[in-house]
Amino acid sequence: MPKSAYEKAGVSIDRGNQAVERIKSMVKRMGVQEIGKFGGFFPLKGAMKNPILVSSADGVGTKLKVAFMMNVHDTVGRDLVNHCVNDILVYGARPLFFLDYLAAGRVEPKVVGAVVSGVLDGCLDNEMVLLGGETAEMPGFYQEGEYDIAGFIVGIVGKESVVDGTSIRKGDLLIGLPSSGLHTNGYSLARHIVFETLNLKVTSKVSGLELPIGRELLRVHRSYLKPVQPLLAEKLLKGMAHITGGGLLENVPRILPEGAAVVIEKTWPVPPLFSFLVQAGSIAEAERYRVFNMGIGMVLVIEPKKLSRVEAVLQAAGEEYFLIGQVTENRGGARVRIQ
Amino acid sequence: MPKSAYEKAGVSIDRGNQAVERIKSMVKRMGVQEIGKFGGFFPLKGAMKNPILVSSADGVGTKLKVAFMMNVHDTVGRDLVNHCVNDILVYGARPLFFLDYLAAGRVEPKVVGAVVSGVLDGCLDNEMVLLGGETAEMPGFYQEGEYDIAGFIVGIVGKESVVDGTSIRKGDLLIGLPSSGLHTNGYSLARHIVFETLNLKVTSKVSGLELPIGRELLRVHRSYLKPVQPLLAEKLLKGMAHITGGGLLENVPRILPEGAAVVIEKTWPVPPLFSFLVQAGSIAEAERYRVFNMGIGMVLVIEPKKLSRVEAVLQAAGEEYFLIGQVTENRGGARVRIQ
Repeated sequence: MPKSAYEKAGVSIDRGNQAVERIKSMVKRMGVQEIGKFGGFFPLKGAMKNPILVSSADGVGTKLKVAFMMNVHDTVGRDLVNHCVNDILVYGARPLFFLDYLAAGRVEPKVVGAVVSGVLDGCLDNEMVLLGGETAEMPGFYQEGEYDIAGFIVGIVGKESVVDGTSIRKGDLLIGLPSSGLHTNGYSLARHIVFETLNLKVTSKVSGLELPIGRELLRVHRSYLKPVQPLLAEKLLKGMAHITGGGLLENVPRILPEGAAVVIEKTWPVPPLFSFLVQAGSIAEAERYRVFNMGIGMVLVIEPKKLSRVEAVLQAAGEEYFLIGQVTENRGGARVRIQ
Repeated sequence: MPKSAYEKAGVSIDRGNQAVERIKSMVKRMGVQEIGKFGGFFPLKGAMKNPILVSSADGVGTKLKVAFMMNVHDTVGRDLVNHCVNDILVYGARPLFFLDYLAAGRVEPKVVGAVVSGVLDGCLDNEMVLLGGETAEMPGFYQEGEYDIAGFIVGIVGKESVVDGTSIRKGDLLIGLPSSGLHTNGYSLARHIVFETLNLKVTSKVSGLELPIGRELLRVHRSYLKPVQPLLAEKLLKGMAHITGGGLLENVPRILPEGAAVVIEKTWPVPPLFSFLVQAGSIAEAERYRVFNMGIGMVLVIEPKKLSRVEAVLQAAGEEYFLIGQVTENRGGARVRIQ
């Protein structure tokens, strides 16, 4: 079959359609029908008082480069979904639906299929619908075999149930929930340390780490939906911060009222991956809590008198946790002091 | 000031924050406050019966390459928004809010500011809120000075007001609304013809075209919200198709019921940009209606007896329109015959 003029210019509508078919067949198990049309439908059911939609857009950043190096494409979709889920969970919102954007120089149905299967798994894990998405073939934008992905989430919360940190006061406690790895930030630096400074391969074993370094770096960004939902149901939380780019130093202040600051005490065991990166990269004390999550992926702020109930709920959910600090007065200095 | 380890690895949180500040200051005029936090809030007001959220994700494709060549970055954001608006408008949905994703190798606050100002203008034009967005700095992903953008839209429509084409029957009429240019598809082929086959510059003048070729290619993808809204209010439409990638040939069938096909007659004046591209690129008759919109950006399907009212409404809105075809029976051949 002769190549069409469009194909010669580097774009294949047929190859695109093939990828869409692959996605469609996967999507069937979720009962969604609108993929491949112009937009997706989500009927709003139930009678929530003063419903607020909470929405967020995000990407996976240069963690993708590790996926490319390992030729593993079925985990980054889960990273994307879980990142977005956590970003709206901090306001007390329950995920409703998700859309993804995938762009590549050339759409390889197998790779796109693997990425979207990860997105689907992430949606299923978080009891959310994959409502649609766009797969764009953009010759000359991405290197051979590479792509970028973005995700978009919409969730819902009743006005009376919004968690926004406004009631946070001096004396409140900070509880940290463990991260599952680097999550989706610090990868440009981590890759620089691992693959340039140390010249390791993705298959290299590092003493103290369970898996080869590539696998360690690719560990999926976890979702905090399951342990946090029962806490929300009992209205036990005053505020939550998802520890992404900017680390504990920049993310915790996002939810603090004007008058509050926090002192964080290094009470939790820093996972060996972070100790290794910090040492190998000679990352200064102040900087490590800005570029990496250092083992804490979600911070909860609670009233001291709620502590025993919060602990009971987290234990019942099988969730590990650490008491990592306290709210203090904002005296105009750093909003987060780590000691 | 010494560069931090992160800066050395190619990522600047400060430069990112600078871009966020720039965006924040622009966003103020829209009354949105949540940008820079984890997610955006959209209170659902009003008492719509059986509300359905309609959502879509999209990009601008390789039209961005023309923007790069011209160093013009304030139009692609409007392309992005308008494309998304049209994608949910076809179901009768009214836009509620929008989020954008922008990724670049290096975040240049000036360029990002220009892109987002276009996104904001697009949101304002369509009476929609810009609820949030993500600006990702991804060293090693994009070429110097280049970036990719994706947009996500959420709109709403009452279940009883959904326009989905199911009532389309033999004898119904097709009305075409004019496009403002290539919109956001066919750019890989168009650029190939213009800049490779013909070796033109963006500043080259082409006989018969009003503006230099770069400007012609960069004309903003228009939104059909304003002319279509009054038609929706009077329930005059049975179906709508946004003519994007795949052209008239692939987009019209998306809304046809099983039993229907269409005959399209070339009654409208094909804009000179398309005649020029088709001739210079020797694009076969069949292919041109698949890769380009050929001058029709939106197709409306109506009952014949509604025609005079539809014409009156479109005229009152100052909208040009063409009667371009008719619905026929699906006899198992091509769903769209262009003659």
